[in-house]
Amino acid sequence: MSHNSFGKLFKVTTWGESHGKAIGCIIDGCPPLISLNEKDIQKYLDLRKPGTSKFVTQRKEDDKVEILSGVFKGKTTGTPISLIIYNKDQKSKDYGDIKNKFRPGHADLSYFLKYGIRDYRGGGRSSARETATRVAAGAIARKVIKHILKKDIKIRGAVTQVGALSINPRNFNWNSVNSNPFFCPDKKIVQVWEEYLDLIRKKGLSVGAIIRVNAQGLPSGIGEPIYGKLDTELAAAMMSINAVKGVEIGLGMEAATITGDKNSDEIRTKGKNIIFSSNNAGGILGGISTSQEIDISVSVKPTSSILKSQKTINEKLKNTTISTRGRHDPCVGLRAVPIAEAMMALVLADQIMRNRAQCG
Amino acid sequence: MSHNSFGKLFKVTTWGESHGKAIGCIIDGCPPLISLNEKDIQKYLDLRKPGTSKFVTQRKEDDKVEILSGVFKGKTTGTPISLIIYNKDQKSKDYGDIKNKFRPGHADLSYFLKYGIRDYRGGGRSSARETATRVAAGAIARKVIKHILKKDIKIRGAVTQVGALSINPRNFNWNSVNSNPFFCPDKKIVQVWEEYLDLIRKKGLSVGAIIRVNAQGLPSGIGEPIYGKLDTELAAAMMSINAVKGVEIGLGMEAATITGDKNSDEIRTKGKNIIFSSNNAGGILGGISTSQEIDISVSVKPTSSILKSQKTINEKLKNTTISTRGRHDPCVGLRAVPIAEAMMALVLADQIMRNRAQCG
Amino acid sequence: MSHNSFGKLFKVTTWGESHGKAIGCIIDGCPPLISLNEKDIQKYLDLRKPGTSKFVTQRKEDDKVEILSGVFKGKTTGTPISLIIYNKDQKSKDYGDIKNKFRPGHADLSYFLKYGIRDYRGGGRSSARETATRVAAGAIARKVIKHILKKDIKIRGAVTQVGALSINPRNFNWNSVNSNPFFCPDKKIVQVWEEYLDLIRKKGLSVGAIIRVNAQGLPSGIGEPIYGKLDTELAAAMMSINAVKGVEIGLGMEAATITGDKNSDEIRTKGKNIIFSSNNAGGILGGISTSQEIDISVSVKPTSSILKSQKTINEKLKNTTISTRGRHDPCVGLRAVPIAEAMMALVLADQIMRNRAQCG
Amino acid sequence: MSHNSFGKLFKVTTWGESHGKAIGCIIDGCPPLISLNEKDIQKYLDLRKPGTSKFVTQRKEDDKVEILSGVFKGKTTGTPISLIIYNKDQKSKDYGDIKNKFRPGHADLSYFLKYGIRDYRGGGRSSARETATRVAAGAIARKVIKHILKKDIKIRGAVTQVGALSINPRNFNWNSVNSNPFFCPDKKIVQVWEEYLDLIRKKGLSVGAIIRVNAQGLPSGIGEPIYGKLDTELAAAMMSINAVKGVEIGLGMEAATITGDKNSDEIRTKGKNIIFSSNNAGGILGGISTSQEIDISVSVKPTSSILKSQKTINEKLKNTTISTRGRHDPCVGLRAVPIAEAMMALVLADQIMRNRAQCG
Repeated sequence: MSHNSFGKLFKVTTWGESHGKAIGCIIDGCPPLISLNEKDIQKYLDLRKPGTSKFVTQRKEDDKVEILSGVFKGKTTGTPISLIIYNKDQKSKDYGDIKNKFRPGHADLSYFLKYGIRDYRGGGRSSARETATRVAAGAIARKVIKHILKKDIKIRGAVTQVGALSINPRNFNWNSVNSNPFFCPDKKIVQVWEEYLDLIRKKGLSVGAIIRVNAQGLPSGIGEPIYGKLDTELAAAMMSINAVKGVEIGLGMEAATITGDKNSDEIRTKGKNIIFSSNNAGGILGGISTSQEIDISVSVKPTSSILKSQKTINEKLKNTTISTRGRHDPCVGLRAVPIAEAMMALVLADQIMRNRAQCG
Repeated sequence: MSHNSFGKLFKVTTWGESHGKAIGCIIDGCPPLISLNEKDIQKYLDLRKPGTSKFVTQRKEDDKVEILSGVFKGKTTGTPISLIIYNKDQKSKDYGDIKNKFRPGHADLSYFLKYGIRDYRGGGRSSARETATRVAAGAIARKVIKHILKKDIKIRGAVTQVGALSINPRNFNWNSVNSNPFFCPDKKIVQVWEEYLDLIRKKGLSVGAIIRVNAQGLPSGIGEPIYGKLDTELAAAMMSINAVKGVEIGLGMEAATITGDKNSDEIRTKGKNIIFSSNNAGGILGGISTSQEIDISVSVKPTSSILKSQKTINEKLKNTTISTRGRHDPCVGLRAVPIAEAMMALVLADQIMRNRAQCG
Repeated sequence: MSHNSFGKLFKVTTWGESHGKAIGCIIDGCPPLISLNEKDIQKYLDLRKPGTSKFVTQRKEDDKVEILSGVFKGKTTGTPISLIIYNKDQKSKDYGDIKNKFRPGHADLSYFLKYGIRDYRGGGRSSARETATRVAAGAIARKVIKHILKKDIKIRGAVTQVGALSINPRNFNWNSVNSNPFFCPDKKIVQVWEEYLDLIRKKGLSVGAIIRVNAQGLPSGIGEPIYGKLDTELAAAMMSINAVKGVEIGLGMEAATITGDKNSDEIRTKGKNIIFSSNNAGGILGGISTSQEIDISVSVKPTSSILKSQKTINEKLKNTTISTRGRHDPCVGLRAVPIAEAMMALVLADQIMRNRAQCG
Repeated sequence: MSHNSFGKLFKVTTWGESHGKAIGCIIDGCPPLISLNEKDIQKYLDLRKPGTSKFVTQRKEDDKVEILSGVFKGKTTGTPISLIIYNKDQKSKDYGDIKNKFRPGHADLSYFLKYGIRDYRGGGRSSARETATRVAAGAIARKVIKHILKKDIKIRGAVTQVGALSINPRNFNWNSVNSNPFFCPDKKIVQVWEEYLDLIRKKGLSVGAIIRVNAQGLPSGIGEPIYGKLDTELAAAMMSINAVKGVEIGLGMEAATITGDKNSDEIRTKGKNIIFSSNNAGGILGGISTSQEIDISVSVKPTSSILKSQKTINEKLKNTTISTRGRHDPCVGLRAVPIAEAMMALVLADQIMRNRAQCG
């Protein structure tokens, strides 16, 4: 979990720049004998693909994933799985202002300050394009989880707020999420969001969002105290996604505001199962899963590339202004849903393997 | 960052149970030739010490730290520093209900489900007592930061909310933090909190809190994209603290609600320095520090040990009820301030060393 | 496997200087519910204890190990196990020449060159005293191996050569090893060694040795290609022991000299088992165990502390001479046997856990 | 240093099977602003290339390396460098006996026993083809070393023995190494080796070799005691190369046979430099470099694919015999020279960065 690698036993290392030749990743430590082909991965990439509606970047990418190693006769062999996605949309072109100027709120600046060099083409390594490889790796993680637990874990995400417009939690329905371009679980608010985002897009502005990610069916006992807690690693996983600024487990920030008797989920048994009166803990106590649903919320800031002119500096550290032209996302938060799901899958696969190592 | 180790180059491994013989930690990778003695560490432990007011646990502990290795003639030698704190308050006693029953909201249950065994004495390994060793390690991390950067970084924490009672941000004053038992930066709300917490305590209840942690003076360029981002590791560090349920960098959850032009901090130069119109980013872009203040908020849930009777189960998974007697913290959040500061120091020391390795 | 930590899942971190207050280690990642007490560990420490014959250092140490954490009611809890051994023989004294001068062949010099400081008391951190904690950790590793495999693996070591005096391989008998003070498996050569070492000791000289370490009963499939190979990690483990200068797996250096038809172990089945015509591979192919015995040889150089005067420099980098007085080991190789066994146990325990994680 | 990753700060992760689509690696943690292009890497690959003489495999591979990421405008950017080499010689073909039978001495068997599946095409992942990516990564490591130390370190290898035919150490001349197809430093033995290997080749046999690897110019202070010792990691690096069975630092196994006064290298100063009377230590004391040459010897076993019929079993674990047809290496040791150099470079680059992190 440093630089470009994520995970301890199910380890993903990603590489590639937005407008380089290709992007890709290596998955190391995958169990053998799991059936795997490119379609298994492609279906998740397609969910993330830019250009699926007018509300996300109009970049024309196929995002066609290719497996280069680690699979033989349709099965994983236990050796590293190398995935590659060629960048088709990388034609040499004029990068305009972003070549010499820094966009406020964008990592262009901090990469330059750290390394003394940056690949300015489309944000280079700091571009959200890197997240395609996370989604690809996440698809394999889901298969690993099923392979080890011998059952499916439902890992699902939804957008619960766009700008200040929150869903009504009582209308929350997972079945609605894929029936609209916003991953919105409350069908009553879909049209409101559509109109609002259309307005934001026309103004050349952008807006943030809140994502909820949930895992159902995880057994108890997953997670490594003290520094490898399940919630610790989920927080890290989510915060590693571009533009994420806040992470909440269960009640999250609200847990600060209530008293202990209201916060603690009371415990009962029902047959051989343990059940709880509520899930304020988000399914995790002391960093270890309890068998309740894992529940996380994540805030995504508005994209920093906007049409409106903003004060900034250039590479020579002189004052100037910038206004980003060309395609842009009015709400990057929408695209974060498959990514957040993938990061959840990566954490769970890794922790399940670590638990198997220590506890059998 | 797994199990009981934290950090990659400045690595801390902690051990010990609440009511075992001792607790302690090893700091590995510390640069040599830094002056260090027990007083340097003790002063931070004393800030955290239980029993400093009626609002925190009345456990009588000296928490006297001893350096067992890694220091010779008053200086670090580059070899592992072993710290130990003996548990004086560990006399054999009746652990009452918690011996056989699980406290709702407490890790007692999840440790048992994971390992099939748990040290029930005072919460065992899951007790907040472990955090004393973090504070001790954090004291050394502060020295490392100063040693490498050749200047002091101010790492400070404060409580900004107790239950639903928030400070007035306009009254925020770091100088007030140590003049009251609540680490409260708004002296106008101190009395309100005091009365409220007294009430909570008398009722045998508990309440949550929000902590703000801040680092001033960090140069730009610290942090490792993509999975070793500064905010990623700070989020992990904070979420690894007992009872923490939410972490926000800069605007945090609120970043979701505003538009990009308002969220992005505009950039100017002032002499040779880069300055920003605001600090919504919390000092971090793309996982790398920008030279602005690092700013984080953390929610701490109310302690799960309360007098009020709650439904639970016992080790035989039978339904029962529990009510925790004896000393307890009405607001564990108060004790989290020195811990959150220590975790910030650990992350920064480690990242500063990693940056020195790669970028010189 | 860097600085002071060894292992990936069964991880040992050691600390302490030869003449500091204490030495110790933390074992992190140990499976829960394994019965463990101090006697289980002490018996291996006693084998290594200095002062058991006139052929090893006459240091008077009890080397009494104490478990400080991670065990509750006689069983491991899955939390870190902290072990401590107090240094009783650390009375303030005159360190003589070694305080200011460097012993040729000793790490005194290189520690000073690296860190700019060194704890000169008894070699400080570079002393072989650190290996006591390896032996302690190895005792626990043996229990872990048995716990997971549900059977005993025999891990045994022997000295096969002292100086130029090699055993006769045809006389090799594991049962002889513990019947003499040299861990010698060939009883016919014991007296020759005794006389030779007595001579070396009286002359104030020292001599090297070759150690063989062997594991019997390990199932096939243990080891992680490509960089986590079983032989890779065993080589690292052995080379990390003080004074070791060479490591051989199976035929070792001799494998270079023969033809492929003579080197490759032919394969047959016998019932459900796979058997081999020979074990030139030392039980490992491609970094993975084959179910044959794991067989390693290790060379240990002569100790660098000798009575004979040698040219050297002092801390001010001026030319001088040194002659080490006081107790010394005529052949440190003898003491390396329990240490090499312990390192083998640590590697196997870790790799068995890693194999369980990936392959179930 | 597990599975398919090597190094802690300068980290290489390799992937790919012998007859899959491609092989490649990711270098993570590379310092920024180092000039780098494909030619810098290609020249080392060409040295290793199969088919350069009749004494190595006649596989027709261009081994053309392509940089996919991490370099912008001819300079490293600090982001991951992805290298790919397409397998041109991977046409579908008859794999004959090795499809169902195991070659004695080959990892085919152990991969199958571990994973329950193996890519039998050309040895799959266990093929020496993987080492091409090590050589590529090593080329970058050399640049990193020069970049940080601001001077060249000479890292060189040679073959010092083929089968039982050793060079005469007195004839050793680095300048001879590249003037013959055997990396032989003793020009007087070249013809003897040539005739011997021709014989071996014609008989369809194979033979082992000893390789010497040397680094000149490394400053003192590089290496991390206790488990991250320079010699520990070099031993691991060498042992991770296919077919290596023994590793010696300095005197190696011979160190066991002599007395301490003869083994220890005496120390003098010469101006501001420290010089030594000999280099029996191979440049390393206590795991830390002393400024002497780093000197290692490595034994490589004979290749296991030979024409001679041998007893073995098939995938159904039935007894059978095998005789490997087609191209083969009479002495794989010859090809190990550039690989061993590359591994030395990888260890040094990583340790130099780690030393910079801790000691500045």
